[in-house]
Amino acid sequence: MFYIIGLGLGDPDDITVKGLNIIKQCERIYLESYTSILSCGQEKLEEYYGRKLILADREMVEQRADEILDGADTQSIAFLVVGDPFGATTHTDLMLRAKEKGIHTSIVHNASIMNAIGCCGLQLYHFGETISIPYWDDSWKPDSFYDKIVANLKHGLHTLCLLDIKVKEPTLESLMKKKREYMPPRFMSVSEAAGQLLEIVANRQAGEADGIESQKEHSLNENSLIVGLARVGHETQQIVACSLIEMKDKDLGPPLHSLIIPNGNLHPLEKEFLQQFAELDQ
Amino acid sequence: MFYIIGLGLGDPDDITVKGLNIIKQCERIYLESYTSILSCGQEKLEEYYGRKLILADREMVEQRADEILDGADTQSIAFLVVGDPFGATTHTDLMLRAKEKGIHTSIVHNASIMNAIGCCGLQLYHFGETISIPYWDDSWKPDSFYDKIVANLKHGLHTLCLLDIKVKEPTLESLMKKKREYMPPRFMSVSEAAGQLLEIVANRQAGEADGIESQKEHSLNENSLIVGLARVGHETQQIVACSLIEMKDKDLGPPLHSLIIPNGNLHPLEKEFLQQFAELDQ
Repeated sequence: MFYIIGLGLGDPDDITVKGLNIIKQCERIYLESYTSILSCGQEKLEEYYGRKLILADREMVEQRADEILDGADTQSIAFLVVGDPFGATTHTDLMLRAKEKGIHTSIVHNASIMNAIGCCGLQLYHFGETISIPYWDDSWKPDSFYDKIVANLKHGLHTLCLLDIKVKEPTLESLMKKKREYMPPRFMSVSEAAGQLLEIVANRQAGEADGIESQKEHSLNENSLIVGLARVGHETQQIVACSLIEMKDKDLGPPLHSLIIPNGNLHPLEKEFLQQFAELDQ
Repeated sequence: MFYIIGLGLGDPDDITVKGLNIIKQCERIYLESYTSILSCGQEKLEEYYGRKLILADREMVEQRADEILDGADTQSIAFLVVGDPFGATTHTDLMLRAKEKGIHTSIVHNASIMNAIGCCGLQLYHFGETISIPYWDDSWKPDSFYDKIVANLKHGLHTLCLLDIKVKEPTLESLMKKKREYMPPRFMSVSEAAGQLLEIVANRQAGEADGIESQKEHSLNENSLIVGLARVGHETQQIVACSLIEMKDKDLGPPLHSLIIPNGNLHPLEKEFLQQFAELDQ
């Protein structure tokens, strides 16, 4: 049996009892290490389970799936994923490959950022499409996600923004040399995300002045309310509600960070709940 | 401390290790019983925890919150919720009331239908606004949720449809007599939901023929692909992918059921994954 087990968001004991019992009787245990990170780190997990974990990076999952699945027709193999097993496309792909080989799979669900962001008091059924904000560089500054935020605002919906993670990114040099060298891991902060959003807002406003159709009513500006979340589900969780321009100067500490753009028409209960995160900080 | 603990979706051992350890040292433990149901039932939970649970129905949570929170400033009180603590507005309200009283609260997250529906292979970040389909009666047939499905389809997004639950609904007679009598609990099935959707589709098509602006391109019809899910996260989980009209005749067994309207432009991986649920059934 091939088990894909969600670890939840924060501590080793955020695993479910079901998941922990399965891990204890597995032959090999892989820990997926590139779509997310657990606040507690690998060593703490190994200590907690009393078992060694094999780190599975992107290259292993995408190119050496056979190795991971090897023997799972007769033995129990576990693949651990931060959050819920269905948070990333590659895990779905892994399940399909197992099925092709006639290997039975079993899923153990857990909390993920997709439902845990309810902790800021914004109701999950008022959220529209989730977007990802990618790191920009000097020559590549995609901004199409901004249109999705605007579409959500138009329909009175909140937007969850997942912030970019760069783990095991090869350096440009190593690509040319064909020798593997990696850049240090990077996790986008709410401050960096706010900075990129402000740049887009400025560009669009310039565009509007130049005659491009205005969508002012449903667009963002410097004073738009946004919510920054760090280490959701962990003891050190932090939530801040402030304006977009203020968010640029916030330091919410270590990763992972997420951002929410609330709709412009909050339910009274949502407003009341958010208020506590504005007070705390200002 | 007042703990709100998510139980996940299926079995007693879907609780997290953290949640279970907290329950074991609490003075009183409430089990919320009206926004959802756990497949396994109250008795199995009590046996598993080795503790008695106090059932908290809608009336208790909305009108006797003081009773639930009593003593939580000095003792540990737990409030158990199927899925994740932030799945329903009333739990957010309970947290605010605790805060007003100066009682500290702590949240233990878990999987909920909002993220676990990823199990059908449709990617969570391709979902738009979640809708609720209410039970109709002879005189009350609201259909505004249909417009939200159409809006999602227009933006290439899937729609999760949460299906109505009627628990402890007073009978009309009892309202008049001022004597409490309740109707038997009802949980909408994917078949019932498909039936109501087909009625709306027929009405809208008649409307279009009468000259109302056509939105044919992004509307549903009898042959639209839909996905029915039952008891997600539980051993007996069932997923069926078929046309809307076929879904009307499906029996997916005991509650809870949910329905997904996929967008018309599936990613190849989503299509491949869904296929297995079409094969199983046809």
